[in-house]
Amino acid sequence: MNFNFSNKLANLKPSAIREIFKNLTDPSVISFGGGNPSPESFPVDELKTLAAGIFENQSSTALQYSITEGYTPLRNILKARVKEKFGIGRDFDDTIIVSGGQQGIELACKTFCNEGDRVLCENPSFIGALNAFRSNGAIPVGVDCDNSGIIPEALEEKLRSTPNVKLLYTIPTFQNPMGITTPLNRRKKVYELCKKYGVVILEDNPYGELRFDGEDIPTIKSMDDEGIVIYCSSLSKILSAGMRIGYVTAPCEIISKMVVAKQSEDVHTNIFFQMLCYKYMTEYDIDAHIEKIRALYRRKCNLMLECLEKELPREITFTRPSGGLFIWCTLPRSLDSAAFVKGLVERKVAVVPGATFLADENEKSSSFRLNYSTPSDDDIVKGVKILGKYAKEYLANN
Amino acid sequence: MNFNFSNKLANLKPSAIREIFKNLTDPSVISFGGGNPSPESFPVDELKTLAAGIFENQSSTALQYSITEGYTPLRNILKARVKEKFGIGRDFDDTIIVSGGQQGIELACKTFCNEGDRVLCENPSFIGALNAFRSNGAIPVGVDCDNSGIIPEALEEKLRSTPNVKLLYTIPTFQNPMGITTPLNRRKKVYELCKKYGVVILEDNPYGELRFDGEDIPTIKSMDDEGIVIYCSSLSKILSAGMRIGYVTAPCEIISKMVVAKQSEDVHTNIFFQMLCYKYMTEYDIDAHIEKIRALYRRKCNLMLECLEKELPREITFTRPSGGLFIWCTLPRSLDSAAFVKGLVERKVAVVPGATFLADENEKSSSFRLNYSTPSDDDIVKGVKILGKYAKEYLANN
Repeated sequence: MNFNFSNKLANLKPSAIREIFKNLTDPSVISFGGGNPSPESFPVDELKTLAAGIFENQSSTALQYSITEGYTPLRNILKARVKEKFGIGRDFDDTIIVSGGQQGIELACKTFCNEGDRVLCENPSFIGALNAFRSNGAIPVGVDCDNSGIIPEALEEKLRSTPNVKLLYTIPTFQNPMGITTPLNRRKKVYELCKKYGVVILEDNPYGELRFDGEDIPTIKSMDDEGIVIYCSSLSKILSAGMRIGYVTAPCEIISKMVVAKQSEDVHTNIFFQMLCYKYMTEYDIDAHIEKIRALYRRKCNLMLECLEKELPREITFTRPSGGLFIWCTLPRSLDSAAFVKGLVERKVAVVPGATFLADENEKSSSFRLNYSTPSDDDIVKGVKILGKYAKEYLANN
Repeated sequence: MNFNFSNKLANLKPSAIREIFKNLTDPSVISFGGGNPSPESFPVDELKTLAAGIFENQSSTALQYSITEGYTPLRNILKARVKEKFGIGRDFDDTIIVSGGQQGIELACKTFCNEGDRVLCENPSFIGALNAFRSNGAIPVGVDCDNSGIIPEALEEKLRSTPNVKLLYTIPTFQNPMGITTPLNRRKKVYELCKKYGVVILEDNPYGELRFDGEDIPTIKSMDDEGIVIYCSSLSKILSAGMRIGYVTAPCEIISKMVVAKQSEDVHTNIFFQMLCYKYMTEYDIDAHIEKIRALYRRKCNLMLECLEKELPREITFTRPSGGLFIWCTLPRSLDSAAFVKGLVERKVAVVPGATFLADENEKSSSFRLNYSTPSDDDIVKGVKILGKYAKEYLANN
């Protein structure tokens, strides 16, 4: 039978990155392509102890169906945490548990977008979000960015000229893939513009706790007097990515729609691990744990930056993150990074070509993304050396 | 701000059942309304032992991001199991892990349906599936059933007269909510009709392993020479519902679309519990465990049937399931069960009104659903006594 797939799925391709990694079985390749947290960031022994306790004393709750909104004690402790750390949560807001930040993004799109509606986003942006929009039949529309994030004039132009814009999706802190952070004045402008044009903001903050340099900048959600911001985050980068636990804070009216949509997707998130996270957050010092992850990523990021400075030809520029997982490199003379990256993989170093992250899949990019959280220190040194040598040859010949 | 929600979510209500139970805090109410497996069906001690081993030896895999398709060893053991038990799986098929059977249903709809497309289903049908269709903008269309399931003539009439039918959703074994099982000749007719009209079948089989009486009837998927059947099932009813692990077997071409859609929803299913299920299925005797659950439900179902025979007025009819979790009762003279159920809750017995399960939310039903897996034996006896007394009074006055 010739299948007649839905329009939204017919042309949607799997994430290029996940496909690269599924097929990356050659152990001699040094990968800067991932986005995985370091395994050192998982508090294994503590989780093991707590899990045994749940099987012992709470198994009939932990293994049974539960409510869609999530485990109430975990929701409450997360509410308190984002309030304290990020000034998030007003009387009109509520917080629910989702199956990773990815589900929060997808549900927000499903809640607001009909097929054909537009979602504005940084260009480049997180591929998982772009595909979540596409998988709902919504069309991502990229807004030009500089090293301070979304350019307000470009945003206003898009808000004015694009039909059926329902959401602005933004990662203002340690953006994926660029590693940049939007300063406060820009955040305020983004908020005011969306308010003016009646567009809901979807603020994604998966890396917010991973600052290893400088001071926190207020989240856009912390400015949300009007109740127009959906805030998504997760425990993937600070406790475990594989457990798939994220959370969303948004006005109650939006949350109640997202709950209905979530009920139809997976009924609820794995309840055992929701209880495990709650126990970890009450019985151990999560802030001390996060401090260790920050120190680890600070060291790894600095090491990679030093190597890049030493090895890369001057014409290749790169961002200098204050947190998160990624560095964004840009080739000179608008060279297409796709060909560059392909040659680099042959030299056994994997990075992600910039075009992967563009709203318009047919556009080209001269940038590529590096990750420093997953590779070992040795591989960072060795891999950047290979990258530098190859880049010099490449620029000489292109 | 007045939110402009998507058309598909604007009018979608949360599952009436889940809402009833969220608010059912009165411990004196006897509930026959749930659909939860008995807590006795979770092999707690075994899972506890295996979980400790995973934290000990495989934590960096079990807590890290994983592939969307699911944990390969679990996929392989499930493939082997459905092949052996249900004759499922041809060369053109593949099997993936999903976050509960619910996600399999939702992804199938997203993969095939544009907004406005139709999904045929038994009338009544599983509310979670109906809402999954609605949440994707698809419209469920009920097909008339008798006590042997979908009536083939009614199905052909709908296939002929309904525009844009993309899927037939069916639960042929121990149907929810009716507790009935479609015999082999009907299954064959359903398959042939869908083949003739080019409509993909979504066969949902969450209760297939819970037969406590009679012989297994071949699944529709086992007849699938043409590759037009998507088969959904889960481990919720035999290992743990709260972990949210299900699986889908379908032609590779469909599976690869569902994988792309799943990647956008939750990246992958909780990998720790996928590994735990695999270990359970290899290190313990899952068939012996299932045998225990069957014996438990056989006893509970028989107890409830005996009580119904003794207590209910003759005019109320009910189904006699050979497995699964539900009994379907029908009032005489087309009495609307909504009012009946409301009065019954005041007598402290909760059941689910039949209209909840109808494709057309405005239709009325004279039936209601009873569950026997969750209540204690005492509550079954006591609750049916109250139901019987109330029903006699109700029928005398209406």
